[in-house]
Amino acid sequence: MSAEPLFETVCLVGIGHICSSLALALRRHSLARRLVAFDIDPDACRIAVEMGLVDIASTDPAEVVPGAGLVVIGVPVGAMKGVGETLAPHLTPGTIVTDTGSVKQAVVRDLGPAIPVGVHFIPGHPIAGTEFSGPASAVEGLFIGRWQILTPLPGTDPAALERLTTLWQTIGSNVELMEPCHHDRVLAITSHLPHLIAYTIVGTASDLEGHLQQEVIKFSASGFRDFTRIAASDPVMWRDIFLNNREAVLEVIQRFTEDLTALQRAIRWGEGEILQEKFTETRAIRRAIIDARQA
Amino acid sequence: MSAEPLFETVCLVGIGHICSSLALALRRHSLARRLVAFDIDPDACRIAVEMGLVDIASTDPAEVVPGAGLVVIGVPVGAMKGVGETLAPHLTPGTIVTDTGSVKQAVVRDLGPAIPVGVHFIPGHPIAGTEFSGPASAVEGLFIGRWQILTPLPGTDPAALERLTTLWQTIGSNVELMEPCHHDRVLAITSHLPHLIAYTIVGTASDLEGHLQQEVIKFSASGFRDFTRIAASDPVMWRDIFLNNREAVLEVIQRFTEDLTALQRAIRWGEGEILQEKFTETRAIRRAIIDARQA
Repeated sequence: MSAEPLFETVCLVGIGHICSSLALALRRHSLARRLVAFDIDPDACRIAVEMGLVDIASTDPAEVVPGAGLVVIGVPVGAMKGVGETLAPHLTPGTIVTDTGSVKQAVVRDLGPAIPVGVHFIPGHPIAGTEFSGPASAVEGLFIGRWQILTPLPGTDPAALERLTTLWQTIGSNVELMEPCHHDRVLAITSHLPHLIAYTIVGTASDLEGHLQQEVIKFSASGFRDFTRIAASDPVMWRDIFLNNREAVLEVIQRFTEDLTALQRAIRWGEGEILQEKFTETRAIRRAIIDARQA
Repeated sequence: MSAEPLFETVCLVGIGHICSSLALALRRHSLARRLVAFDIDPDACRIAVEMGLVDIASTDPAEVVPGAGLVVIGVPVGAMKGVGETLAPHLTPGTIVTDTGSVKQAVVRDLGPAIPVGVHFIPGHPIAGTEFSGPASAVEGLFIGRWQILTPLPGTDPAALERLTTLWQTIGSNVELMEPCHHDRVLAITSHLPHLIAYTIVGTASDLEGHLQQEVIKFSASGFRDFTRIAASDPVMWRDIFLNNREAVLEVIQRFTEDLTALQRAIRWGEGEILQEKFTETRAIRRAIIDARQA
């Protein structure tokens, strides 16, 4: 290595899709001299080591957490509290702890109290990922050109924040700072509602009688298919997101339902102008996404 | 050309996304000696000729329709009736007339009565297309590996059906025969509901105050983006689909709303097991789509 790595040891907690992809990125950019993992699943540990994602992986935090300069927690949001309590005795002052959870207020609430004094807790959320799960689903370059949202709490050490920012920027992410509450509201619209809708529509299809269901699969390219990818996302992860961002999600469901009812009524009464006007507005949003290079 | 083309002259009526892509496919496979187009929009006619999609394009059906062995009508479903009446005086016995409309019962109802005796009317629907419109959006190979649904009426001439089937198969489509009523029910689920939902969710986002809307665009990769592509589809085409497949669409909206309400309730009351179970079921559908090579 030409330069000193940013961290001596990085410990990945929960070696699933995000942390395993992060391991690939950290290796590629030589950001850690040593990569270790803690996971309660021995199979995940074995696969992570066999794939060369990390140097050591253990189901015992005492073996891998102490001495890590950075700990990245990539577990479902509902597991944060328990993981925080498990990690706490092994964390040493000066360590940076971050997470990859899709909800931020609940993580601050659940993980925050467990973090010992002197340990820098900086919640984060990479807007990246596929519908796949587990260490074997690691994707090279997953974070390139994607957003990394960090929601530092009041009084966060600026040097720790800068080091974590540098890490994400080095692996290709664009770092954005946000309030946890604002994060949860924005993501309820951009991510949680779309996933809930996708789960619903795919669920509606899966309740159809057998023959009709086969045809839905056969002719899925006509629109349905676009929804099935995100409805194949990890069930536990998504259960936890909805349970832990309840208020914001219920509010956007309400808005969505009102809007759907308005279109339903226009269809029932044959009000073509209302439909055409609404469908014309939505084209502009797609264009804005393409212009923002997020398409 | 080594062999005789399947048709001497093919006339494309409404030279938009589907018919212009069909023109490319017909040329590539030498399926017509002469390609002509009728469109009420002089700009579309000009572009279609300039791009070399067709040999002649005219806003006057008398100039292009007579003598065509195959007429393919690719206009919004709501325009079928008027187009049928316009074309009727120029159609000659033996000609095959087909369409590309996304609804089939309404097309049979609106177009059928206008077709003169001796002309073979075989309604069709290619399950293909992008969110783009107009002749300039022609896509090479658009129909390869996609389904072409034909909904022949009782008493359809078998030779005419076979010729039309051969045409679609030659350009790479898989041809499926179906009852118009069954087609409309299947497509209400696989295509019409997904589009309505996508239009709704993107519409919900476009009603947000300016700052929040900018953030929705910025962080759209988190799920929202998957919906915006289909919500950018042609507004008039989709207005007509909803107005002309009203019963089937209203029925699936009803099912969808019930299912969404059940999930909403589970979120409100913190019923994690219900959520996890539902989200696990939907993964199986995605897997089936991948297995059916429609992903």
